[in-house]
Amino acid sequence: MVIFPEQEHPKKAFGWAARDSSGVLSPFNFSRRETGEKDVRFKILYCGICHSDLHMVKNEWGPAGTGPPSTYPMVPGHEIVGQVTEVGSKVQKYKVGDNVGVGCMVSSCQSCESCANNLENYCPKWIGIFGAKYHDGTTTYGGFSNIMVVDEHFVVRIPDNLPLNGAAPLLCAGITTYSPLKYYGLDKPGMHVGVVGLGGLGHLAVKFAKAMGLKVTVISSSRNKKEEAVKHLGADSFLVTSDEDQIQVTIDSNKFLILKKLQAAIGTMDGIIDTVSANHPLLPLVGLLKSHGKLVVVGAPDQPPELPVFPLLMGRKMVAGSAIGGIKETQEMIDFAAKHNITADIEVIAINYLNTAMERLAKADVKYRFVIDIGNTLISAP
Amino acid sequence: MVIFPEQEHPKKAFGWAARDSSGVLSPFNFSRRETGEKDVRFKILYCGICHSDLHMVKNEWGPAGTGPPSTYPMVPGHEIVGQVTEVGSKVQKYKVGDNVGVGCMVSSCQSCESCANNLENYCPKWIGIFGAKYHDGTTTYGGFSNIMVVDEHFVVRIPDNLPLNGAAPLLCAGITTYSPLKYYGLDKPGMHVGVVGLGGLGHLAVKFAKAMGLKVTVISSSRNKKEEAVKHLGADSFLVTSDEDQIQVTIDSNKFLILKKLQAAIGTMDGIIDTVSANHPLLPLVGLLKSHGKLVVVGAPDQPPELPVFPLLMGRKMVAGSAIGGIKETQEMIDFAAKHNITADIEVIAINYLNTAMERLAKADVKYRFVIDIGNTLISAP
Repeated sequence: MVIFPEQEHPKKAFGWAARDSSGVLSPFNFSRRETGEKDVRFKILYCGICHSDLHMVKNEWGPAGTGPPSTYPMVPGHEIVGQVTEVGSKVQKYKVGDNVGVGCMVSSCQSCESCANNLENYCPKWIGIFGAKYHDGTTTYGGFSNIMVVDEHFVVRIPDNLPLNGAAPLLCAGITTYSPLKYYGLDKPGMHVGVVGLGGLGHLAVKFAKAMGLKVTVISSSRNKKEEAVKHLGADSFLVTSDEDQIQVTIDSNKFLILKKLQAAIGTMDGIIDTVSANHPLLPLVGLLKSHGKLVVVGAPDQPPELPVFPLLMGRKMVAGSAIGGIKETQEMIDFAAKHNITADIEVIAINYLNTAMERLAKADVKYRFVIDIGNTLISAP
Repeated sequence: MVIFPEQEHPKKAFGWAARDSSGVLSPFNFSRRETGEKDVRFKILYCGICHSDLHMVKNEWGPAGTGPPSTYPMVPGHEIVGQVTEVGSKVQKYKVGDNVGVGCMVSSCQSCESCANNLENYCPKWIGIFGAKYHDGTTTYGGFSNIMVVDEHFVVRIPDNLPLNGAAPLLCAGITTYSPLKYYGLDKPGMHVGVVGLGGLGHLAVKFAKAMGLKVTVISSSRNKKEEAVKHLGADSFLVTSDEDQIQVTIDSNKFLILKKLQAAIGTMDGIIDTVSANHPLLPLVGLLKSHGKLVVVGAPDQPPELPVFPLLMGRKMVAGSAIGGIKETQEMIDFAAKHNITADIEVIAINYLNTAMERLAKADVKYRFVIDIGNTLISAP
């Protein structure tokens, strides 16, 4: 017996879903479960659009062997904020009317070492907010939809002083950059940190790093991002690089200046947060690190890059990974953001602009995050 | 005016040198400086043969861009022990008759951040014990020779209970494996550490790790090293792998058993010390790590390996480098070795067996380190 998404659960829900790997999304009727005793139900108001939504919608990770294969229909969206409309009888932290957020996860085993250490994001049994199978065997659907029901453990509170639309991207882009700065000890005032790529993740990395008191150098292949990086986001300096050839190709007018600048930057950084998922060489980045420096990669390229082993040895350097953060740290990050007035720079869109936004996102044509105004623009199909 | 090596300094010295990249070594007359006020002069008794001596003799690093180009004549040898015969007027730590050792370094700037932190090995201006230019512009010559003169800062004491021949390889192979276990926090009793490769470095890594109270799994492409690893060196378990194809190719008789064992090992290790400089894939090793696990590479392959980024992200894992250790830590390592009766397993050879030993080393045909009996077999050319 086929059970349609509309019939799986008692509560009607609607959103926009991809039906196949074409990448096109369209209105979709489905359902959500009743509010369980530990569940928080909320009306979704805003949802960010992350590059990984695009990867998943187009099933780009499964075939490449870098992630799970996509299943359809798929309702993406994992940077979700909204207002609580109902709580279960055993919910302790939230009440109706609270502003809350949910990111990439809706469950984890709660019994492994990672879960015991508030690192649900590294639990081997964590369940994603969309495209995954929940405990009851039903499919999870993400934030491009009108309502959400989640175990309160996976819900965070959005402080009152944060605008909800600019806060939404903190749930993924924010924690993805904040967590490695903390875990790898790159959060000590006066440290020099590089941020590779000035997109949704990178611009938040700059904001967090500056708020931590770090010296920040933005490293980008787009020379025209310099003004944004330095004047608007407050980075201390800017390097056009990531590829030695690129320096020579893109910086013909004042090549000497930039090359000199790059050389001056060699061996100066305590750490680098590399947010670029396009293929790029690691060697120049490793060269920018001081001895004992840390290159932390938070974007996964299609092709595995070459690892420059000798420079790693000679400077006791490391190349490390990091993926989002645990729930406790996500709340800490949100509270830190609220204290320092950090939100994402966003372009708010209506839901019917979604497919255009996805196309623009594929071309990195956004400063710096699309956020869907779900509350005002997502209208139920007739 | 050409100054011959015999005439550079007032004190005659002799050893064996390579004259070109053929790899052949032969007797060589050169000279050493007078004992400076901070210098320790000692009669060399034993010198280990490390794989990097072989690389340097054959000029394999320079052309590959992974290290300095070799210069000739070259007297290799950087695992040197001997007995002090003279000390300068300002030498404080050593006296005539002391057993001492010297490793890869004879100088560093003593003013940079690395030097200030007892990490002379990461000083950008450190001077190697052979094939480098010393402060006075003369060439440094290594331990395949009769006498050594070194600033006392770069000398370590060999405790009385350690046999000098088995202690020699500690000066490079020992510190190269001990230092990353300490720095990367892989030294806590009960931790599970993998050691890739059972050669000069690997067998010492096993001994140190066991002495630290760790659970040790040896990971090797040579199935016939299992008995050595487990029965002789005390490893807790043994994995034939490093390459998924290799598992299937080399383990046909009881493939199921080994595959099952590999699968059981997946995600179980806190860290791995990878001592293999032959090209090999990193993905299976990253797979053996727990979340937050550390793969530390101490051997440099000719070709940069592919970095499996997605598994690094998903488990917050790292791939890191490490190169020998500072002088303070080298002394700590030697003292730790003395306390736990750790020396290298060696094959002692006469100097006139040197070229044969180098050929055998190239084929990894030694358990586990050649050590030249310099004191008894190095005779001055007539």
